[in-house]
Amino acid sequence: MSHEIPDVPGDAEHVGCNGAESLVATLVGSGVEVCFANPGTSEMHFVRALDRIEGMRPVLCLFEGVATGAADGYARMTGNPACTLLHLGPGFTNGMANIHNARRAQSPMVNIVGDHATNHERYDAPLNADLMGYAEAISHWVRRSRSPRTVAADAARAVQAARQPPGQTATLILPADTAWLPAERPSPRLDPAPPGTVSGDAVDAAARALASGRRTAMLLRGNVLHGQGLRHAARIAAATGCALFCDTFTPRLRSGAGSPGVTPLPYRGRAILERLGAFEQLLLVGARPPVAFFAYPDQEGWLTPPGCALLTLSHPHEDGPAALAALAEAVGAPRKGLAVPFDPPSQPPQGPLTAEGVLRVVAALLPEEAIVTDEGITSTLPHVPLLARSAPHDYLPVTGGSIGNILPLGTGAAIAAPDRKVVCLEGDGSAMYTLQALWTQARERLDVVTVLYANRSYAVLNQELELVQAASGGERARSLLDLGNPDLDWVRLSEGMGVQAVRARTVREFADAFARAMNTRGPSLIEAVIV
Amino acid sequence: MSHEIPDVPGDAEHVGCNGAESLVATLVGSGVEVCFANPGTSEMHFVRALDRIEGMRPVLCLFEGVATGAADGYARMTGNPACTLLHLGPGFTNGMANIHNARRAQSPMVNIVGDHATNHERYDAPLNADLMGYAEAISHWVRRSRSPRTVAADAARAVQAARQPPGQTATLILPADTAWLPAERPSPRLDPAPPGTVSGDAVDAAARALASGRRTAMLLRGNVLHGQGLRHAARIAAATGCALFCDTFTPRLRSGAGSPGVTPLPYRGRAILERLGAFEQLLLVGARPPVAFFAYPDQEGWLTPPGCALLTLSHPHEDGPAALAALAEAVGAPRKGLAVPFDPPSQPPQGPLTAEGVLRVVAALLPEEAIVTDEGITSTLPHVPLLARSAPHDYLPVTGGSIGNILPLGTGAAIAAPDRKVVCLEGDGSAMYTLQALWTQARERLDVVTVLYANRSYAVLNQELELVQAASGGERARSLLDLGNPDLDWVRLSEGMGVQAVRARTVREFADAFARAMNTRGPSLIEAVIV
Repeated sequence: MSHEIPDVPGDAEHVGCNGAESLVATLVGSGVEVCFANPGTSEMHFVRALDRIEGMRPVLCLFEGVATGAADGYARMTGNPACTLLHLGPGFTNGMANIHNARRAQSPMVNIVGDHATNHERYDAPLNADLMGYAEAISHWVRRSRSPRTVAADAARAVQAARQPPGQTATLILPADTAWLPAERPSPRLDPAPPGTVSGDAVDAAARALASGRRTAMLLRGNVLHGQGLRHAARIAAATGCALFCDTFTPRLRSGAGSPGVTPLPYRGRAILERLGAFEQLLLVGARPPVAFFAYPDQEGWLTPPGCALLTLSHPHEDGPAALAALAEAVGAPRKGLAVPFDPPSQPPQGPLTAEGVLRVVAALLPEEAIVTDEGITSTLPHVPLLARSAPHDYLPVTGGSIGNILPLGTGAAIAAPDRKVVCLEGDGSAMYTLQALWTQARERLDVVTVLYANRSYAVLNQELELVQAASGGERARSLLDLGNPDLDWVRLSEGMGVQAVRARTVREFADAFARAMNTRGPSLIEAVIV
Repeated sequence: MSHEIPDVPGDAEHVGCNGAESLVATLVGSGVEVCFANPGTSEMHFVRALDRIEGMRPVLCLFEGVATGAADGYARMTGNPACTLLHLGPGFTNGMANIHNARRAQSPMVNIVGDHATNHERYDAPLNADLMGYAEAISHWVRRSRSPRTVAADAARAVQAARQPPGQTATLILPADTAWLPAERPSPRLDPAPPGTVSGDAVDAAARALASGRRTAMLLRGNVLHGQGLRHAARIAAATGCALFCDTFTPRLRSGAGSPGVTPLPYRGRAILERLGAFEQLLLVGARPPVAFFAYPDQEGWLTPPGCALLTLSHPHEDGPAALAALAEAVGAPRKGLAVPFDPPSQPPQGPLTAEGVLRVVAALLPEEAIVTDEGITSTLPHVPLLARSAPHDYLPVTGGSIGNILPLGTGAAIAAPDRKVVCLEGDGSAMYTLQALWTQARERLDVVTVLYANRSYAVLNQELELVQAASGGERARSLLDLGNPDLDWVRLSEGMGVQAVRARTVREFADAFARAMNTRGPSLIEAVIV
């Protein structure tokens, strides 16, 4: 077995393994094979264990938010947890924003957080913090190992918790002495409980609803948006004419030619109400009823239109693909479902570059099986439908609304799927939160192309200032929404981290640069200066 | 008064102020005059209020850790809280690492965190999170405003809590509707309780100890390391011959010519034990007994040497300067205390650049009243004593051990003290956590010079790997400690954010660049490639 533990030569206290080794061996034995790491002193035994135990790939990240975002991307593409390696309370907090996004993506992930040795806690040394409080406020599962002899068992349970459908955040706190002291043998893999089974009654109710003649929309979330579940949804749509929707920000959507063409709901609440207003019933498959992203004075937060009935086929923790398979049989669906043709948009006319122009070029030139990650917000959301008839691809947006997700997400997705091209659609404001991801892309020579929309502003906030009736902003307000003065130079920032970059100001420049990037392996960045 | 609130013209619902305006007016009236902001949708009314209420300077930060670190630097230099403006749970988490450092620095700070409207919480929209859980785990004081009518009072209490000696972290959560709905008038300033008074008995006991003939060291922390408190400590040292120490990482130390030459304790526990081994008693003034930064197998964590008596003159919440004044009188100290002469080190010989060479140049050329912030760790800690006889300056290291503190800290210090030159001593590994601070320095045209030690590694971790007996690291371990492959290009990274930069590889190049930077106003960066 690849994760057997060699004796530690020259280690006087014991001839077996230490806690860190039992941990790494257990993780590997449980199927965790990548570690996105930003280690410190308290993690040095874990670091050493990576060389003593085969099977774990360490990936250095220069900021913890890159590590947690990459673990999210890895999980979205593989369904498997990666682990992160973080350094005490402050290291964990730096990773929390992208743990938040991973939670909203239902991504399985295992955070290993080194901490002070158990006999050192009482001194309240400078790095001491309420790590347990931080971890409990955001994780589905938390444990602090109290003895090296339980580290292996704790690790097996952490992976089990992470894998619990639909996917959870597990955080294992590892005091330094539990890593360095003699430990038990690795713990065998523990399987999570299987996803809940959707009852025949629920399937029958859904089938009756679809047969009722009422105009019906299905709202899908989770693993029913790719793979077998989506195939069955496509069959049901073909048989019943129901419309297929997903949330604006959904963990992973199969899109492009061959997919059934699931429509992401728009971002604005009023637009969602308008879109769903055409339907008499909304069938939830792993999804929750739509709600507004933010509240606004005098606007509705609950977005199921009045008079539209809500019906649940499957809850997030249940087996959505099996429920859809059963429903497809119940409605007598054909073997082949809806499938969008390959019919990408034409490239835009020459001239200055616009946000729409960028996405037209991307949609036209996207290679088969690309992975598109998206956090372009104002620059991309209105134009994402352009991707619907591109070459088949997976679409991964920011899920939890915490910007700074996408450069790390693309990094993790590229490690999960090394033979696929990753295209990150990213705004300049968003990119600044976790730009350190570019360095990891350079080091690991990942096949990621970042399209950086340079609009020199928090563009969405200019819209928001009006929407919350807070317009008439003066000079101070404007200064907080404007990213100019000075302009960020993304070519230098990218090259400073070892990722080659070019600037494009016209459609031709962008199309040339994007075409070149599609035909070249390795990381690159295109700063798309849009008007 | 500058913070009176104008009526809101054209605002149908009310002619008074809204919650955001009552908040900003209360903050300004309570002496909070700078806001380090990374706002989002839920903060738009606060943003607008900045233009409607005079007296608050907004400073845009492109990552929340920059905002919180800058507030820390501002507080260390002024003793006054700044506020931060953060966006919901994930925005708060991005700022937490530097809130951790600010806590350890006993810096007063007020975090304003926008959140979902109170009637929107129940929908658990994508950005919803356990913000209260996050805030409680790290703040001294937390409140979530529940009504626009209490926002002003809540804000006054937040500032009061932040100012409570020795300085606290206060977090006020502001649901969006409490910002946009009609509110009360601003709340008047509330003063904190004064610092505790040190009893005459404690002063007498300290005086007796100093008169006992036993070899005595004073360990100082907090506001006794600059200003009047330090002056009295210098008098006591002159009268009694006691030695003056401070923690390795202390919030702010007056150093250089004219100061009494307080010695920071070394970083390593064994070195601290050795250093303090010469003393029979340790007198604590606002400090806690020294402990090891990390635990190591078979090393002591408690660093008061055996046989050394501990005595407390003042606790952190007590009035240390007054206690030292009383003690100085009790020991019959002279009016003038110890004062180090101006005697900077000679510049290093020409040749390749070393870490010591860098600090020799800095110490030789430092202008009067510079502010030196330091997170260079392996590159600076061994050489910091070189600064002891430089021109008078304030020295501000990372306090909580969470690297990524210093570029933001220098940013905030420069805003607090616009007429002083700020020199940031920063490692390349540390700089990557919050490099976005450079952009704010460029936008605000701050007089900050960053000396970036490029050693291309997490150098301290190479030491640590040996210290925890985890040596014999193989290829994977080494890959996690090495910042090369590819090298970071700090000249491009800095220029990419609008801060001019040069690279220095020799003593001559560095000395020329540093001298130029000392004679030029405005932000710049020198990448010091050290051997």
